[in-house]
Amino acid sequence: MTDIGFLNDRFMSLEEVKISPDDRGFQFGDGVYEVVMVYEGKPCLLQEHLARLEHSAQGIRLTLPYTPAEWEQRILEGVKRCGYQHCKVYIQVTRGIVPRDHLFPGQCSPTIFMSFREMTPLDENLRQRGVKVITVPDIRWGRCDIKSLNLLPNVLGKQQAKEAGAFEAIFIREGVVTEGTSCNVMIVRSGVIHTPESNHHILEGVTRKILLDLAKKEGLSVCERTIKAKELFEVDEIFLAGTTIEVMPVVAIDEKPVGTGQPGPTSQQLSASYQDFLSRLV
Amino acid sequence: MTDIGFLNDRFMSLEEVKISPDDRGFQFGDGVYEVVMVYEGKPCLLQEHLARLEHSAQGIRLTLPYTPAEWEQRILEGVKRCGYQHCKVYIQVTRGIVPRDHLFPGQCSPTIFMSFREMTPLDENLRQRGVKVITVPDIRWGRCDIKSLNLLPNVLGKQQAKEAGAFEAIFIREGVVTEGTSCNVMIVRSGVIHTPESNHHILEGVTRKILLDLAKKEGLSVCERTIKAKELFEVDEIFLAGTTIEVMPVVAIDEKPVGTGQPGPTSQQLSASYQDFLSRLV
Repeated sequence: MTDIGFLNDRFMSLEEVKISPDDRGFQFGDGVYEVVMVYEGKPCLLQEHLARLEHSAQGIRLTLPYTPAEWEQRILEGVKRCGYQHCKVYIQVTRGIVPRDHLFPGQCSPTIFMSFREMTPLDENLRQRGVKVITVPDIRWGRCDIKSLNLLPNVLGKQQAKEAGAFEAIFIREGVVTEGTSCNVMIVRSGVIHTPESNHHILEGVTRKILLDLAKKEGLSVCERTIKAKELFEVDEIFLAGTTIEVMPVVAIDEKPVGTGQPGPTSQQLSASYQDFLSRLV
Repeated sequence: MTDIGFLNDRFMSLEEVKISPDDRGFQFGDGVYEVVMVYEGKPCLLQEHLARLEHSAQGIRLTLPYTPAEWEQRILEGVKRCGYQHCKVYIQVTRGIVPRDHLFPGQCSPTIFMSFREMTPLDENLRQRGVKVITVPDIRWGRCDIKSLNLLPNVLGKQQAKEAGAFEAIFIREGVVTEGTSCNVMIVRSGVIHTPESNHHILEGVTRKILLDLAKKEGLSVCERTIKAKELFEVDEIFLAGTTIEVMPVVAIDEKPVGTGQPGPTSQQLSASYQDFLSRLV
């Protein structure tokens, strides 16, 4: 079992992968990405991730080099080659290699990079105990629905959270909740799940969508709407949703307890449903 | 004479420079950069560019590996090695190489990349005739005073300009002029030069500052203030200012003529002053 790299249609050891400094990913963040979890050799929600990769690529006017079937074939091959039962696939496509110029290059193939690495499971204690979050101003650009490589504000927000002893930072844009630095945000009020509606300021999370569907199937009410920042301090529960963190209960926000200060029943119910959903996929 | 690369304190041919796909520049745009022009072997306004690199690095909480003197020594060495009389130095520092995680890496050295390439002179006809520009919404993040690698909106704006038959796009944020995708914007009304004041929404251009100083020395009035987008259509002159384009007169904006539709006297005067300033530097 070993980490595997993939560059421009060729598998190699991850150490072998070398990128040109003229890659537009390196100089402009001119590219898009996805992260896919593989449980027991099976990529989880792959079609959903590939559809979003296509959405992101269209958003920056980049033509993806593969069809979903071609992606899938290569991803399955990489999973097989790395040999890890549970692994994490990172997929990145940039606009290619050309001497630096803001303008799109004329003749230039996109750079396709993938890594296949062993999955480091999240500390289960975190999910059991719940996590602290902070709120930070959302200073990101206007197209956060695109999963692009322009991630500096996300990096800075996450680091700020860590330094405040928190797990994640929740972005607030003009008094309104958008999302975490690498996850979506949901709140529970009187048994109803509320989450920011999809727009250019949030990423349409794959896990977010699954959770909303699962909630509806279990008879829970779901409401996608504008959520004011101050509401975060008046809720019964908050939880985060994402590919790697799955369902993560929030027990404190800006040092104030959320609800009882313990993971709430709806978060726990949805977390169990999501685990069940995942187990039925493999 | 040959293109030269520099990676982590070592000179090499530019083709030899290879970047890890785990470089945070490649996956997060987690880095800063500068472009320095070298005329007759002499880096132009190097201390100003290095000071701004320091400002940018502080803005993303990155510690630069070199003092200004250490940068200068290496840049002069690169200029010597490449052998071009006029060359363009690209300087990029990222937060280093580490398996993907938004959080700052604990132990990790920054990646220092530089390229030394022959300068391609700008078509003088452009400056003689002036250029067309378009206006586009400014959807960039809230810290455009940082010269970071998160340049996707700049790339998309510049490409949009090209496809509209224009040279540059001017960003408009909530009805207010900020800057071009890779330059500052100045307007002339009744002989007075106006330009957006420095704040988090514009890059404090090195050329911008020199031009404002030169204008004052020549007895021209200068006013740094908020400029409404609609003012762009009521001015005598517009010009762009930047390291590579120097002073570039704008003769049409969104297909409407600026002033007489010809490069104006103030733009031409300042362009000549800037040429004179540069010639005195070398």
